[in-house]
Amino acid sequence: MPVPVRAPPRPDDPVEQLVTDLVTDLAVPSVAAAASAPPSTAPVRSPAADGFADRHIGPRGDETSRMLATLGYADLDALVDAAVPAAIRTERPLDLPAARSEEEVLAALRGIASRNQVLRPMIGQGYYGTVTPAVIRRGVLESPAWYTAYTPYQPEIAQGRLEALLNFQTVVSDLTGLDVANASLLDEATAVAEAVALMWRASRATTGTVVLDADLFGQSLAVTLGRAAAVGLPVVVADLTDGLPEVDGPLVGVVVQQVGASGALRDLRPLVAAAKERGALVTVAADLLALTLVTSPGELGADVAVGSAQRFGVPLFGGGPHAAFMAVRTGLERTLPGRLVGVSVDADGAPAYRLALQTREQHIRREKATSNICTAQALLAIVASMYAVYHGPDGLRAIARRVHGHARDVQRGLRDLGVTVVHDDVFDTVRAHVPGRAADVARAAVDAGINVWVADADHVQVACDETTTADDVVAVLGAFVVAGVTTAPVAADGTVSFGAFGGGPTEPRAELLRTTEYLTHPVFHVNRSETAMLRYLRRLSDKDLALDRTMIPLGSCTMKLNATAEMEPISWPQFADVHPYAPADQTRGYAALVTELQDWLAEITGYAAVSVQPNAGSQGELAGLLAIHAYHEATRPEGAEHRDICLIPASAHGTNAASAALAGLKVVVVATAEDGEVDLADLRAKLDQHGPRVAAIMITYPSTHGVYEAHVREVCDLVHAAGGQVYIDGANLNALVGLARPAELGGDVSHLNLHKTFCIPHGGGGPGVGPVAVAAHLAPYLPGDPTPGAAGVPVPGASGPVVAPVAAAPWGSAGILPISWAYVALMGPDGLRRATETAVLAANYLATRLREHYPVLYAGPGGLVAHECILDLRPLTKATGVTAEDVAKRLMDYGFHAPTLSFPVPGTLMIEPTESEDLVELDRFVDAMVAIRAEIADVADGRWPLAGSPLRQAPHTAASVSADRWDQPYGREQAAFPLASLRADKYWPPVRRIDGARGDRQLVCSCPPVEAYADDVR
Amino acid sequence: MPVPVRAPPRPDDPVEQLVTDLVTDLAVPSVAAAASAPPSTAPVRSPAADGFADRHIGPRGDETSRMLATLGYADLDALVDAAVPAAIRTERPLDLPAARSEEEVLAALRGIASRNQVLRPMIGQGYYGTVTPAVIRRGVLESPAWYTAYTPYQPEIAQGRLEALLNFQTVVSDLTGLDVANASLLDEATAVAEAVALMWRASRATTGTVVLDADLFGQSLAVTLGRAAAVGLPVVVADLTDGLPEVDGPLVGVVVQQVGASGALRDLRPLVAAAKERGALVTVAADLLALTLVTSPGELGADVAVGSAQRFGVPLFGGGPHAAFMAVRTGLERTLPGRLVGVSVDADGAPAYRLALQTREQHIRREKATSNICTAQALLAIVASMYAVYHGPDGLRAIARRVHGHARDVQRGLRDLGVTVVHDDVFDTVRAHVPGRAADVARAAVDAGINVWVADADHVQVACDETTTADDVVAVLGAFVVAGVTTAPVAADGTVSFGAFGGGPTEPRAELLRTTEYLTHPVFHVNRSETAMLRYLRRLSDKDLALDRTMIPLGSCTMKLNATAEMEPISWPQFADVHPYAPADQTRGYAALVTELQDWLAEITGYAAVSVQPNAGSQGELAGLLAIHAYHEATRPEGAEHRDICLIPASAHGTNAASAALAGLKVVVVATAEDGEVDLADLRAKLDQHGPRVAAIMITYPSTHGVYEAHVREVCDLVHAAGGQVYIDGANLNALVGLARPAELGGDVSHLNLHKTFCIPHGGGGPGVGPVAVAAHLAPYLPGDPTPGAAGVPVPGASGPVVAPVAAAPWGSAGILPISWAYVALMGPDGLRRATETAVLAANYLATRLREHYPVLYAGPGGLVAHECILDLRPLTKATGVTAEDVAKRLMDYGFHAPTLSFPVPGTLMIEPTESEDLVELDRFVDAMVAIRAEIADVADGRWPLAGSPLRQAPHTAASVSADRWDQPYGREQAAFPLASLRADKYWPPVRRIDGARGDRQLVCSCPPVEAYADDVR
Repeated sequence: MPVPVRAPPRPDDPVEQLVTDLVTDLAVPSVAAAASAPPSTAPVRSPAADGFADRHIGPRGDETSRMLATLGYADLDALVDAAVPAAIRTERPLDLPAARSEEEVLAALRGIASRNQVLRPMIGQGYYGTVTPAVIRRGVLESPAWYTAYTPYQPEIAQGRLEALLNFQTVVSDLTGLDVANASLLDEATAVAEAVALMWRASRATTGTVVLDADLFGQSLAVTLGRAAAVGLPVVVADLTDGLPEVDGPLVGVVVQQVGASGALRDLRPLVAAAKERGALVTVAADLLALTLVTSPGELGADVAVGSAQRFGVPLFGGGPHAAFMAVRTGLERTLPGRLVGVSVDADGAPAYRLALQTREQHIRREKATSNICTAQALLAIVASMYAVYHGPDGLRAIARRVHGHARDVQRGLRDLGVTVVHDDVFDTVRAHVPGRAADVARAAVDAGINVWVADADHVQVACDETTTADDVVAVLGAFVVAGVTTAPVAADGTVSFGAFGGGPTEPRAELLRTTEYLTHPVFHVNRSETAMLRYLRRLSDKDLALDRTMIPLGSCTMKLNATAEMEPISWPQFADVHPYAPADQTRGYAALVTELQDWLAEITGYAAVSVQPNAGSQGELAGLLAIHAYHEATRPEGAEHRDICLIPASAHGTNAASAALAGLKVVVVATAEDGEVDLADLRAKLDQHGPRVAAIMITYPSTHGVYEAHVREVCDLVHAAGGQVYIDGANLNALVGLARPAELGGDVSHLNLHKTFCIPHGGGGPGVGPVAVAAHLAPYLPGDPTPGAAGVPVPGASGPVVAPVAAAPWGSAGILPISWAYVALMGPDGLRRATETAVLAANYLATRLREHYPVLYAGPGGLVAHECILDLRPLTKATGVTAEDVAKRLMDYGFHAPTLSFPVPGTLMIEPTESEDLVELDRFVDAMVAIRAEIADVADGRWPLAGSPLRQAPHTAASVSADRWDQPYGREQAAFPLASLRADKYWPPVRRIDGARGDRQLVCSCPPVEAYADDVR
Repeated sequence: MPVPVRAPPRPDDPVEQLVTDLVTDLAVPSVAAAASAPPSTAPVRSPAADGFADRHIGPRGDETSRMLATLGYADLDALVDAAVPAAIRTERPLDLPAARSEEEVLAALRGIASRNQVLRPMIGQGYYGTVTPAVIRRGVLESPAWYTAYTPYQPEIAQGRLEALLNFQTVVSDLTGLDVANASLLDEATAVAEAVALMWRASRATTGTVVLDADLFGQSLAVTLGRAAAVGLPVVVADLTDGLPEVDGPLVGVVVQQVGASGALRDLRPLVAAAKERGALVTVAADLLALTLVTSPGELGADVAVGSAQRFGVPLFGGGPHAAFMAVRTGLERTLPGRLVGVSVDADGAPAYRLALQTREQHIRREKATSNICTAQALLAIVASMYAVYHGPDGLRAIARRVHGHARDVQRGLRDLGVTVVHDDVFDTVRAHVPGRAADVARAAVDAGINVWVADADHVQVACDETTTADDVVAVLGAFVVAGVTTAPVAADGTVSFGAFGGGPTEPRAELLRTTEYLTHPVFHVNRSETAMLRYLRRLSDKDLALDRTMIPLGSCTMKLNATAEMEPISWPQFADVHPYAPADQTRGYAALVTELQDWLAEITGYAAVSVQPNAGSQGELAGLLAIHAYHEATRPEGAEHRDICLIPASAHGTNAASAALAGLKVVVVATAEDGEVDLADLRAKLDQHGPRVAAIMITYPSTHGVYEAHVREVCDLVHAAGGQVYIDGANLNALVGLARPAELGGDVSHLNLHKTFCIPHGGGGPGVGPVAVAAHLAPYLPGDPTPGAAGVPVPGASGPVVAPVAAAPWGSAGILPISWAYVALMGPDGLRRATETAVLAANYLATRLREHYPVLYAGPGGLVAHECILDLRPLTKATGVTAEDVAKRLMDYGFHAPTLSFPVPGTLMIEPTESEDLVELDRFVDAMVAIRAEIADVADGRWPLAGSPLRQAPHTAASVSADRWDQPYGREQAAFPLASLRADKYWPPVRRIDGARGDRQLVCSCPPVEAYADDVR
């Protein structure tokens, strides 16, 4: 074979040469080679590119064979042919790039990252430069113990992250001066939208208006107006500088931003008083760092506060993920959306944390829930809380003073230059009036390595943050001089004289300052050295059971491997330190990555277009339903009824119904047949009844019962025939990838869960990413750009496109998209398909092994399940009293996280092993379940009374089994070491079973005083 | 103030512009600003640069005050004035750069890193490109649970890393075919030197010769010849291609390299047979990856095998740290240097790991030890072992085949080009004969992004490794074409025709192949998915007690914070992926960092010159003593006696004596006075007796008794007057930094321990770094450059400088030097001094709090100790039988790592809290010690018999306290939760007290069969 062996001459162009050199310097070896040698036509013996799939997929060759043998199939193909109905199988294999090695993918991502530019972020608008303390970066963001944890629905094995989230609530509650804060929301823009909804709910008003401050961040307005429009809530945007406007009907509520998008820091007392006088509720959009200096919303009389905790140590991430927050005054807590951590006690009376008031949430209340939010931003809320823990109140105050001091220097410097500064009272952001020259100033700033914010053609804004230095202040002032907007004399040597900086004010004027203390709890005072913080992080994470210690066989939640190579890039500065509203020529890396990922997801699902903007599955659902709604409206024949009904099977995720409600649709339930499939007769009946009003059906495929329904195409056809659209929830897409495509089944739209199928870790309850994928006819109705001032945003009064953004940043949680990109790149088409097949194998293996001990509730073709199976505990419960919850709690003693409890069928356990668990771990789980079945038999046989059984007493703490006194009818070893293998590797739950009802009765949602523990711990 | 506000024009030169852009792209914000804005003259309100010291130093303001109040001092200055004799205090404050923030230091290190260039590493010579699996990088190298652990001298709290090290021993033992392998040595060169010493010891020969293969790596020859010369061992370097040479006297041993430095893979059977015939021992220097294919040294009949485990996943690191290995056949295990993990049983009969045969080691046998090695390379041995665990035997074999296949392609390609290939049998390295053109080929290769090895002017070598691709093979062949060394016709388009690559052999010829299995233990088969590996790493580290969970108050071992910001840079490719023998213009970053660090260390110690080459304290000692020896020899008056005596106080570290022996010095012990100081009278007597032969005294300051001796200058003066040199062991330098300088006390040379004073983590028993610092007159005698072929190396037969290198790489463990660089940069001069002062405060606080419960053995001025204190258990032992060991083990139940046990005084505990522990942790320790004292009183009072006391029964496992049966006279809660605070945070030792003697009697040093556990675990 002829091979070009002459080393390519070094490029003549010195620039190109330098690029080559620098890429060589910085790249991993394979890129260096690529840069210097012509590609060989014989790429043999390279590092095995298909190696990653063998690391991601748990069972290896002989394990797979043994599992297949247990099921009686010769090979994976045979099993898959039997399990997956031919009718749904795709004929077109995945057209994706071939698998690459970990080194190759990391090199490719370095190349993509290098196309992002990191400038000093003085844009503001809700996103600020911040320093993530290294100990928190490594100890939380980069720690599998934190990021692989699941949502703390099983509180006994989640005390560590529940404490961290309680700290977050305490930070928010203290700083906002309001009594109850939740454990994070998705972003500030959706938090404002949620606050508007909350005020409507709380006011119980049926008519009236909510007023939105025109000085809210543009993205908050865009998202909120869109959400309000979807459900038909009247809202008005008004300039509140001189008070409240007159509105139609009662004034339901007001949302005002304390530090405005314009940078104005206002005294809100008169406004709040006026609103109260008119019987309105008041929401304040607040800045946590500013609140360390200025009077809190609670003290101002506000009912609700919202905002973002991003600047508490969470990287910009190109837009997210970040934790937003919401706090309310006492009396509103039951209307609060999102998760809420509360304090209760365990069976021994020890204090214990748990999620409180879950009855508000979508997974229980469905379309009547306070919100459709399911995923929160737990991991980022934890980072923000630890930032506050590490800095303490004095540290935070010092940072705020420094930031404010820089802003005042900018303000004074601009005035010295003769530039008009719009606001006297500011916190961190200075708005300058530069008629017709805003773009010039921004360009000059970019040349100086700084991004500022072009508010409009005549105004430019400079936002200071924790990373701002005195040099930055001088440099940004220089940009105004370079742009020619100064009346001050510029000396021949290009200098302008200022007085000395730095001696000026470090706080806003006294009338605006807060006088109350905050963060007085010891946790914010004893973890201030790095050593103490390191140990605190370890101590908390040690309490929790995450994927780094055990399988988490949660049906429908897909806890698969989050590979390290997928995770590493998110810490790289070129991904982490990019502002979401930075100019497009600075974010080409992100653009390339997003485009490619969207294309890959389209190929996998079979749809025409994908948007990664939705930053949670719930938001993806909303975006999909809004697209359907907009499509129907756009195509509605003159005089036809509005299509406003969404059909939802009884077995659906609660989020489906809640999202439908948010999209302004009425929910009509379709029955589930006994075999777990959609009841076709009932569907026909509902279509007959509501046909012309049916907007869509929302189904999940495979169904939430873990079965490949054979007649899904028929369901789709029926709905289409009635003029409705088909929404296929992508929650179970991991059972389809490479085998079938939702679009080919008949779907018009799906949302995906990148944190399920595509390896973004669950983070202890978020972040999630929920891209929405649509067929071609819906593509025009994908979410708009939330960037303030961007084309396509429904700015107030404008008649723009009807589809609003669903998140605050154009690409949503851009910072974690490299994870899913890496997963697809590493697996390649064959690896992805094999993962799906192995997931099906593992689920059927467990179903087969466990079936003789527990009935398996549903099965599809050939008696096979899809990627998960439901164990029916109800007969045993009836016979013995032992409940599915008892089994879930007892599994903790065996070192396992419980499967999904009582969803979709009460009294059952839904088990999803995923493809990542090897046979050793699957068998360990079977051993535990079999041993538990024997314990149930012992209860049945009367060996132990139920109340005195290890099942009802579970979980057992180390303290309980080593107490001097032991009163149980079963032995200590039976309690703690029911299997011999536990002696080699024992997880100890830190608390015993938690009293949920008491926690809801006596709601405590911020750090209790230390004495609360001292008394109770036994 | 006039400030230049014009933004600097973008550079005209496009290259410079591109650099600016790229630096902007890649840098953290502050660099971007620096690149684009002129430095301000008013750097006010920047992020607090002194902030790091407050994070590193545990006690905060009010805690410091409370501690001082306990001691009765008004402020730190007053305490330090009282504790530190005025006579030793320096008058010159540290002249070091002011403290920088973490962000600034990380930015500075990024700048330094960008000056290193990463090319494809085809140099070989003992250092190879390798892929560190990401899960191991994050899970071990970047995990505080692994890297902050101490040496496993307390095995009950070190079972995790002992298992990992046992895996390492199993890998080495299996692959080398020898029975007993140690748990790592410092590098391959010192391992060869140790093997030579071992063969002398084992042979018990008094005359004779050891033959060294001329095809050993150059660095192995350089280090070994130097070490042999120091102790006067006759060695001969010979070409062994055609058999053994004739030598003077008996042939003691032979060291032969299986895959030679020249790349030759030889069949060693004839050579081994010949050596055996002459009664010689045989050491084979072997390559672990090659051993997956070729016959092992053990099967060849060798007695010893040595080598490096670097290419098992450990980054090149610019030279280190890496784990070397040594394995011996049965019968030689008691002559083996270094640490050896063995299997024993605990008090309940469960299998348990521990360090075996410690009686061989320097800390017990002192100058009669098998070696002076104290630190090993535990962390890197663990990485290498996990690489083998993750790949398993088939994975390793596949990698070896791929590497070999590439080498054969290179070999064939060269022959196709008409280039003479020197060796037919190779593993990974191909030596080409290119008369007079070696440098040209290397230059052309660099242009293609590849480093090759210039063996001499006529020979160039190409080494393939795990990262080599087919493209690399083509590119490196292209370099020969570009350099004009081909007889093959080059087409007009610059191509040469080869046959297709890749179909060639993937194994050496059959006669060389191994036929035996290896790595058959299940551990190498069940951890092959990333999920399984992740959990295995977590499970092991959870067994251990490291600095991330508790203080480790080890006197003399200084377990202070290893800050995350210090640790992060070592993973950066620009530090991690640099070959130690890369051309100097590719390692400018390292050169700058090393130079600056050496300068800083010189400033801190007061010496004239520093070398960072010694990769452990023991090697620093050796280098220092060799410098002294060389100086004496160079300045010895005609006819004068050789100075060959080293005075060492009785209380010295055992390593001191062992190092003196290695440097060819005889040890004479100087008595310690009752107050713990050097006995001046005895010193005078010894000097009178040995004066003209005294080469040096080795003292530690503050002494190993933790006291600032007032008359240290007098000691120095006496020795100097006798013509001797003063070696001040820098083990306790952390009690001097900023307050005094060893050189100013009278020292001529010191070694430092960067892993003690300068924050390199202990890594569970290494890496360490032991720079040697010397006065000006000794500077010419610092270690030479080990780079093969480098000027100054004592190549065989040459009359070069007399001072040999002490490590295989020029800058030793270059890869971890950024840690210490960052520490000094972060702390600045004031922070460093405050750290010292706070360490003294903390030690005195503990001494004061504990004195009423346990006698404190030594004290200096004002009744104060230095940075550590010794608690004397002997009176209590005499009265009650409770030993210091009982207290050490009982502390584990309280969640603490034991203090230093029985050093320097048997029957005592030496406690060093360091500056990093805050008051909460110090008080927690006091509470534990006070509670233990009460338990001792209960034994004294007869409440419990000693044998049935929680002290003697300690530590207690969870299994033991929750067993159904409990026969102890004390309660379970007393055993497990003697303090209420333990209920909130309990560490459970995984095993009970281990039977050391049994482990030594029945030596098991590789993974025992699984059944061994199944039977014994209760």
